[in-house]
Amino acid sequence: MSLFDRFVGHLFKRGEITMILADGTAKVFGSPDAALKPVTIRFVDKGVPAFIARNPHLHAAEAYMDGRLVIEQGDIRDLVDLVRANGKWEEGRVTLRGTLSSLVRDRLRARIQAFNDARRAKANVAHHYDLNDRLYDLFLDVDRQYSCAYFTDPANDLDTAQADKKAHIAAKLHLKPGQRVLDIGCGWGGMALYLNRAADVDVLGVTLSEEQLKVARQRAEAAGVSGRVKFELIDYRALDGRFDRIVSVGMFEHVGVPQYEAFFLKCRELLADDGVMLLHTIGRFGVPGKTDAFTLKYIFPGGYNPALSEIVSASQQAKMIVADVETLRLHYGLTLDRWYDRTMAAKDAIVALYDERFFRMWTFYLAGARAAFIHGNLCNYQIQYIRDRRALPITRDYMAEAEKALPR
Amino acid sequence: MSLFDRFVGHLFKRGEITMILADGTAKVFGSPDAALKPVTIRFVDKGVPAFIARNPHLHAAEAYMDGRLVIEQGDIRDLVDLVRANGKWEEGRVTLRGTLSSLVRDRLRARIQAFNDARRAKANVAHHYDLNDRLYDLFLDVDRQYSCAYFTDPANDLDTAQADKKAHIAAKLHLKPGQRVLDIGCGWGGMALYLNRAADVDVLGVTLSEEQLKVARQRAEAAGVSGRVKFELIDYRALDGRFDRIVSVGMFEHVGVPQYEAFFLKCRELLADDGVMLLHTIGRFGVPGKTDAFTLKYIFPGGYNPALSEIVSASQQAKMIVADVETLRLHYGLTLDRWYDRTMAAKDAIVALYDERFFRMWTFYLAGARAAFIHGNLCNYQIQYIRDRRALPITRDYMAEAEKALPR
Repeated sequence: MSLFDRFVGHLFKRGEITMILADGTAKVFGSPDAALKPVTIRFVDKGVPAFIARNPHLHAAEAYMDGRLVIEQGDIRDLVDLVRANGKWEEGRVTLRGTLSSLVRDRLRARIQAFNDARRAKANVAHHYDLNDRLYDLFLDVDRQYSCAYFTDPANDLDTAQADKKAHIAAKLHLKPGQRVLDIGCGWGGMALYLNRAADVDVLGVTLSEEQLKVARQRAEAAGVSGRVKFELIDYRALDGRFDRIVSVGMFEHVGVPQYEAFFLKCRELLADDGVMLLHTIGRFGVPGKTDAFTLKYIFPGGYNPALSEIVSASQQAKMIVADVETLRLHYGLTLDRWYDRTMAAKDAIVALYDERFFRMWTFYLAGARAAFIHGNLCNYQIQYIRDRRALPITRDYMAEAEKALPR
Repeated sequence: MSLFDRFVGHLFKRGEITMILADGTAKVFGSPDAALKPVTIRFVDKGVPAFIARNPHLHAAEAYMDGRLVIEQGDIRDLVDLVRANGKWEEGRVTLRGTLSSLVRDRLRARIQAFNDARRAKANVAHHYDLNDRLYDLFLDVDRQYSCAYFTDPANDLDTAQADKKAHIAAKLHLKPGQRVLDIGCGWGGMALYLNRAADVDVLGVTLSEEQLKVARQRAEAAGVSGRVKFELIDYRALDGRFDRIVSVGMFEHVGVPQYEAFFLKCRELLADDGVMLLHTIGRFGVPGKTDAFTLKYIFPGGYNPALSEIVSASQQAKMIVADVETLRLHYGLTLDRWYDRTMAAKDAIVALYDERFFRMWTFYLAGARAAFIHGNLCNYQIQYIRDRRALPITRDYMAEAEKALPR
């Protein structure tokens, strides 16, 4: 048996993968598994396997994007699912990382991520969120919620799950009419508009994306609430004033570990003494890790998904009291399934907007993220913060009551 | 103005305290405050103020225990409340600690706490929990729950709040009839007996206290469930086998930071793949701190109340997934209020069991702990753990539903 056969045979145990080499030879690895679809891939030129072996995650993505790795049976979601279900990459990374002292690793990461200043932050945001508006319409829900949805039933559709997510978050904010709410990283304004409509509050949404700002303002105008729901193109660090409530959904992933304490100190400064804050962010179950090279290079420059200890260490240093943590486990996997399906259905339109390579990059991103939530270490944390121990009712019963009563 | 006057005047701003010196001079400090009862104390000999100044927290406790500091108006709860409401001690400690690098501090603590081996653990437990059985009957609730109660209404009585606590915890365990449950640090068996009665499960409770073991076994016999609710005198580290559920209430405070990872690794080993664990422990809101000298010397040798980051860092290292965190904020203050009232009402019986000095030590302990939960950094964490992301329903709705249905 060749080295290639032995290596690949070691990687794939669950599920069946057929590889067609450049010379036409077909090799089958693994064994059938009811939970995993069989996949056939073709290496277009004979350099592809060695290219991938040198930097597996990044180069597999690039070989796929460049059309050097072609999927003949199944799609990229099936392929990534099969790879992640076998889990060897994850283990390999863990073993490799185990040989570096955690100190060295932390320092390296700190050095890389320390420079998330306002200008860099804006460039990172523009890289992703200033993509053609039309793209987001094609794969997101009707309200353009670009973060983990909340599935009261795993069979729910995307619009329902995103509406339930907004209600779930609003319930944890314990809102009262007339309160001032700050939405840090407001996206296209959906959450801000919802909170105003659902709880009669005034909202300031801030974003670093000019595209998002434009859309959010138009929506507030169209809804006739631009006097009560305002949007600004401003770094949250430049804000002042006090807010009764702060909500931040899917923005913390861009903050960077060295900035966490500053983030929470700023939030504490902006939060009223009896205020409540709800942080909704991707995180990981286990120990701190690092963002994969593909995501950093093509999708989210500067992006990082924290371990819970990293969030809590920073927030407790800033004297923010953790009142409640809910770990949304499979919800993001379900969300990404919907986004992937919508992306596939909109293939022609997306290729027309960009090109085939972009489409493959985008589907690789969604498939990879989905698999990380289903097989890997990713999850979504909702963390509720207060400054004063008396800021919320003594039990959590108010959450379920509010959630039932809130509009969808 | 004397140095004494200036120093004490700086300590007391809120509330009114009158100090009668050994020579009969009376001095009044602070100013009236509706939330704080005025207190009058007397220093019996003229060395008392300097003695307290040398080591305020420990020596104030010892001067009170030894009858050298006498409370003439109000009681020890009022006095401690007034001191903590002014918050200067806490601040003083923070400033002092700030001058030590966190590295040095962590190493010192690690060295002190590293030796929590099985023999030491048993001695620490015996120090507190092998006190005369009768004492616990006098100040605890009817079920002898010696941990934070759960007040669905702050006006509830102790028996109600402890019954609600057991239901609150049972709901988070997501129990099914016939499951095997492990109770680590089972006390006098109340939780184990409740879980069996409420959810038809088999329970093994373990304790290091011979007094607790005896009582717990007698109770299981008396209830006719000794075939299904068993108790053993064994260190949790010596257990083997697998359990569907693990519950640990008020035991983690005795584990010690250097043992946290080993604790969670052992729990993971003992927990079924689809198991659920509920940890109920005192903790602190802010950064890691240290146990005060009085508590370590007289009440809980080896005791330590962790910051949330310390718990989470250790558990994520052991690959335990945090599914849910609830921070019980004022509940322990309310619990300690009830315990204090019952202790005061049972003064004669407690003095007859021990002596006046023990009674003053005990009231100082309860008053000090109460104030730390109301004015200081203490709280009670309930952390729900799983090994597998699919081990629990996708939303938390099952908790509220179970809680309503569970017996009290």
